Amino acid sequence: MNANHPERRGSAWAPVITPFTSSLSVDTPRLIDHCRWLQSHGVGLAVFGTNSEANSLSVTEKRDLLSRLERAGLNPARMMPGTGHCAIDDSVALTRDAVQMGAAGVLMLPPFYYKGVSDEGLFRYYAEVIERVGDSRLKVFLYHIPPVAQVPLSLGLIERLRDAFPQTVVGIKDSGGDWAHTLNLIERFAADGFEVYAGSERFLLDTLRAGGAGCISATANVNPAAIAALAGAWQDADADQRQAGLNQVRDLFESYPVIPAMKAAKASFSGVDDWHRLRPPLVELDSQRRQSLLAALEAQGFSMPEGKDVSH
Amino acid sequence: MNANHPERRGSAWAPVITPFTSSLSVDTPRLIDHCRWLQSHGVGLAVFGTNSEANSLSVTEKRDLLSRLERAGLNPARMMPGTGHCAIDDSVALTRDAVQMGAAGVLMLPPFYYKGVSDEGLFRYYAEVIERVGDSRLKVFLYHIPPVAQVPLSLGLIERLRDAFPQTVVGIKDSGGDWAHTLNLIERFAADGFEVYAGSERFLLDTLRAGGAGCISATANVNPAAIAALAGAWQDADADQRQAGLNQVRDLFESYPVIPAMKAAKASFSGVDDWHRLRPPLVELDSQRRQSLLAALEAQGFSMPEGKDVSH
Repeated sequence: MNANHPERRGSAWAPVITPFTSSLSVDTPRLIDHCRWLQSHGVGLAVFGTNSEANSLSVTEKRDLLSRLERAGLNPARMMPGTGHCAIDDSVALTRDAVQMGAAGVLMLPPFYYKGVSDEGLFRYYAEVIERVGDSRLKVFLYHIPPVAQVPLSLGLIERLRDAFPQTVVGIKDSGGDWAHTLNLIERFAADGFEVYAGSERFLLDTLRAGGAGCISATANVNPAAIAALAGAWQDADADQRQAGLNQVRDLFESYPVIPAMKAAKASFSGVDDWHRLRPPLVELDSQRRQSLLAALEAQGFSMPEGKDVSH
Repeated sequence: MNANHPERRGSAWAPVITPFTSSLSVDTPRLIDHCRWLQSHGVGLAVFGTNSEANSLSVTEKRDLLSRLERAGLNPARMMPGTGHCAIDDSVALTRDAVQMGAAGVLMLPPFYYKGVSDEGLFRYYAEVIERVGDSRLKVFLYHIPPVAQVPLSLGLIERLRDAFPQTVVGIKDSGGDWAHTLNLIERFAADGFEVYAGSERFLLDTLRAGGAGCISATANVNPAAIAALAGAWQDADADQRQAGLNQVRDLFESYPVIPAMKAAKASFSGVDDWHRLRPPLVELDSQRRQSLLAALEAQGFSMPEGKDVSH
C-alpha cells in the first residue's frame, strides 16, 4: 500500500455504546436506532467493544443481539463485532455468527483473566479459535488494549499470527494510547495491507499519514460525522484544523469517565434519560458531573447531527 | 468466635485442577475421580477457581459439569464453586445452580475486565447477583485476588456488603499473598463469624491462630492430606513443624508456574499423561522443567497418598 495514494480513504468505527432498560436488559430497538444513526454518519459498527460494555453481556445475549442487528438490515460490511472471550468456546461461537452474517471482520481481545501469559499461550489461543471457526471468510483484527485487558499483544506474537494465518489475521486496533507504538505497528506491518487502527481519533490524521487504516474510537459514538469526515478527507488542506476540532471534543470527554460521559451526552441530545444507565461495575455520572459535562459541551458549541432527537 | 476455642477446627479447600482430553474438552470422569480423591483426603472442592482454569471454561460447560459432579455423589456441603463472571447473568446462572445443589457456598470473583472501577460499582454488581439469585440459602465468599483479577476488594466494600447482606456475605478468600492484609481482614471481620481463608497454605497456621477459617489453596490439589491434617490439628504441639513441611512443598511448586507444575505432578503420580494439558493461554511445562520438578519432588521425599495410581 502506498501511504500517499490519492485514492486511499481512511475508515472510522465506533465501539457502539449499549443502551439498557430499567431492569438492565439491553434495549434492542434503541441499540438498532443508534447503529443506524452511526452508519448514516459514516462510521462502522464495532459492536461488543470495551465501550459497549461487551464483557458485561453474556455470550447468549450477544449472539441474540447480533442476529437482531442483522435482521434490522444494518450493513454487515460495516460491522466488526468484538468476539474475544476468556473461554475459547465463547470466542468461537460468536466469531462464527459474525462470519455467517457477513461481517467485515471481528475484533478479538486476548483471553484477559490470567496475567503474564506467554506469547506461546496467546498464539495457541488465537490459533485454536481461528482453526475451530475454520472459515476462509474470517478476518481477525487483533485488539491490543493493555490499560484494560492488562494482556498486551507483542510484536513477535503479531508477526507469528500473521505468518501462520496471512489471509485471516489482517489488522489490529491499538488502544494502548501510545502513538510511538501505533507508529511502530504501521511501519512494521502496514506495507502489505495489514490494517492498523488507532484506538482514538486523536491519532487519526497521524495514523492515516503514516499509512494506517483509520480509527476505532469510543467518541465516534457522539461525534461520528466529524470523525468520519476527516477519515475520508484526510488529504485535504484543512485536515489539521479538523483534527484540532476532533481533539477538542475528545479532550472534553476524556476529562470524565468516557463511557458514562458518552451515555450522558447521548441521553441529553436524544432526550431519552434511559441512556444514562450502565451495567455494574460501571456507574453513571452523578448529576453534578452531568451538568458540568453538558455545560462544557455547550460552551464548545458541540451538537449531535440531526438535532436533539437522534435516537428516533 | 473465640480464636482459641478448643473445638475449633480449620478447613482446607482445593481450587480443583481441571483435566482436559486431547481435543481440550473437560475429561469429566477424570475430574470426578480427582474430586473424590481430594474429598477422601479431607479437602473441600472449590471447583471453578483460578487454578481450575475456570475462566477458560464457558458458562454452559460449567453448569453441565456442576450437575455431573452432583450426580456423581460428591458431598455438596464440601463444595464451593467459583461463580463470579464479568457478566451478571452468567454469575447468577451458575450461582443459582450451586445453591440448588446444596453447595456450602460460592466463591465470587468481582467482574474483572474493567480496571479502576469504583466500590459503588462493585457493590452494585454483587448486590445485583445476590438479589437476582434471591435465595436465603446462598452463602457468598468474596474472592480477593488482585495479582490476577487486578480488581481488589477494599475493606470499605466488604463492610458495606456485609452490612447489606449479613446472612449471605459470610466470608472471603484472600489471594493477595500479603499476610498483613489477611490478618487485617481477620481482625476487622472475623469476630462475629465471618470466615477468612488464606489463599495459600503457607499462611494456614497463622490464619487459624489469628481466628481465621483456614485456606483455599492451589497446592491442596497435590498435597491434600498434609494440608487437611494441619487444618484439623493446628492446636497440636507439632503444628509449627507440620507448617514447615507444607511450606517446603509449596516453595517447590511456586518455583514453577503453579498450575502447569501441579498438573505435571498429577500426571506423573497418576501415570496419566493427559493431566499435563492446559487450555490456552496457559501452557504445560516443557520436558526439561518437568524433569527438574519431579527430581526436586523426589529429593524431598514427596509422594501423593494412595501411591501412583491416584486418579483411579
